[in-house]
Amino acid sequence: MKAEKPLILVTNDDGILAPGIRALISVMETIGDVIVVAPDKPQSAMGHAITVNNTLFIDKISKDDTIAEYSCSGTPVDCVKLAVNEILKRKPDLCVSGINHGSNSSINVIYSGTMSAAVEAGIEGIQAIGFSLLDFDWNADFEPIKSFVKKIALETLANKLPPGVVLNVNFPKLKESEIKGIKVCRQAKAYYAQKFDKRQTPFGKDYYWLAGKFVNEDKGEDTDEWALANGYISVVPVQFDLTAHHSIQQLNTWKLND
Amino acid sequence: MKAEKPLILVTNDDGILAPGIRALISVMETIGDVIVVAPDKPQSAMGHAITVNNTLFIDKISKDDTIAEYSCSGTPVDCVKLAVNEILKRKPDLCVSGINHGSNSSINVIYSGTMSAAVEAGIEGIQAIGFSLLDFDWNADFEPIKSFVKKIALETLANKLPPGVVLNVNFPKLKESEIKGIKVCRQAKAYYAQKFDKRQTPFGKDYYWLAGKFVNEDKGEDTDEWALANGYISVVPVQFDLTAHHSIQQLNTWKLND
Repeated sequence: MKAEKPLILVTNDDGILAPGIRALISVMETIGDVIVVAPDKPQSAMGHAITVNNTLFIDKISKDDTIAEYSCSGTPVDCVKLAVNEILKRKPDLCVSGINHGSNSSINVIYSGTMSAAVEAGIEGIQAIGFSLLDFDWNADFEPIKSFVKKIALETLANKLPPGVVLNVNFPKLKESEIKGIKVCRQAKAYYAQKFDKRQTPFGKDYYWLAGKFVNEDKGEDTDEWALANGYISVVPVQFDLTAHHSIQQLNTWKLND
Repeated sequence: MKAEKPLILVTNDDGILAPGIRALISVMETIGDVIVVAPDKPQSAMGHAITVNNTLFIDKISKDDTIAEYSCSGTPVDCVKLAVNEILKRKPDLCVSGINHGSNSSINVIYSGTMSAAVEAGIEGIQAIGFSLLDFDWNADFEPIKSFVKKIALETLANKLPPGVVLNVNFPKLKESEIKGIKVCRQAKAYYAQKFDKRQTPFGKDYYWLAGKFVNEDKGEDTDEWALANGYISVVPVQFDLTAHHSIQQLNTWKLND
């Protein structure tokens, strides 16, 4: 009896036409049965946004002789919800999101549509991984990282993630031979020193563009930033129980009920 | 010498005209100097979205003799970033977000624009609290909870939150006399059993509305859901280091580098 192939849901936040998701699909096709449900347009920095006050459309864009691909008018999280609850006939064995054009390491995980899609799959009890390459270029080269993407996906299928955990995987922009290996890390404590670029419309009204500089003051060698800066692929286990359990005892000393 | 009054930034995700933020402003005015920077339209369920591919506008909407209020074209997180980096002359002592019309307990924290604004303030090193009332009605009655909002804000200013922690405060829909007290809790492990309401446009094209039922199978009496169901105000400390530290050891047993 032949083992059933794993069912793999592929999504992203750069949109269904992005080269990054094309690379991810090509790897996943070598592992299992693939279904793609991804945004019809770029949805970067959407965080965990969902569409509650608007309608959602799905279009099947693949031909009958190829893998099933659906483009969706919503956010990355909407895509996962629609895929799992409307499109797929059974729960997928794995959900992969990306490959993002650009980093989702350290605090970027909070803003990332790529990771929010993976987190949403995790909430729905599905093994999930977000992949990101440290190269914002639309023509970024995903070839050097394909073997690692496959390795991490296969290990996830084989070992299974602990309940309530998904993976945030970031790849340095290096040649395959330059990559030193894969490191399990913690999220570096970094932030953006925000600046806004203030301009004026042709009619004299002020407006702003978000700008700013990434600042990492976390010198730990167990962080994703350290791994990436030193030639490693970073794998951070991400949880969606946001409770700061360690601080409950301290808060209980406050005089909230006096 | 008189102590300086605390500087308090008020924001929300229901928009600057919502009754919930009006209630919050009225409480904060009794504590400190208030500046309001909030979305010009409802931004519910925006998660931690930020505006990277579009311009941002700010309008000062208050008269000169009242507290400073700015409406912003962006998301709740954009509002905090703009307030801290463009509008305010010094870092605020406290950022409060809400009062949300509807629950942000348990897994709702992930989707919540209210909480994302508070989290963003936390990332920027500001004491921050998100407040939500379990009543979606635009005409919800915020009077019964005002004294508790003030208490929690004052305790936060007096005690200071641990670094990397913000508060997620939810209020049951009860009369003031029916509220049993304030409980520090953990986030219940709950989820949405998603369903989509499938309809057709007048032109025969399928579309979907997000629907679904909140499911809480977590029976712990230390959860926010338990507290709210039993007449308590829930206070959950929320962190933005998403690393599942407890799972790093397990992941290190995987054969990622063989």
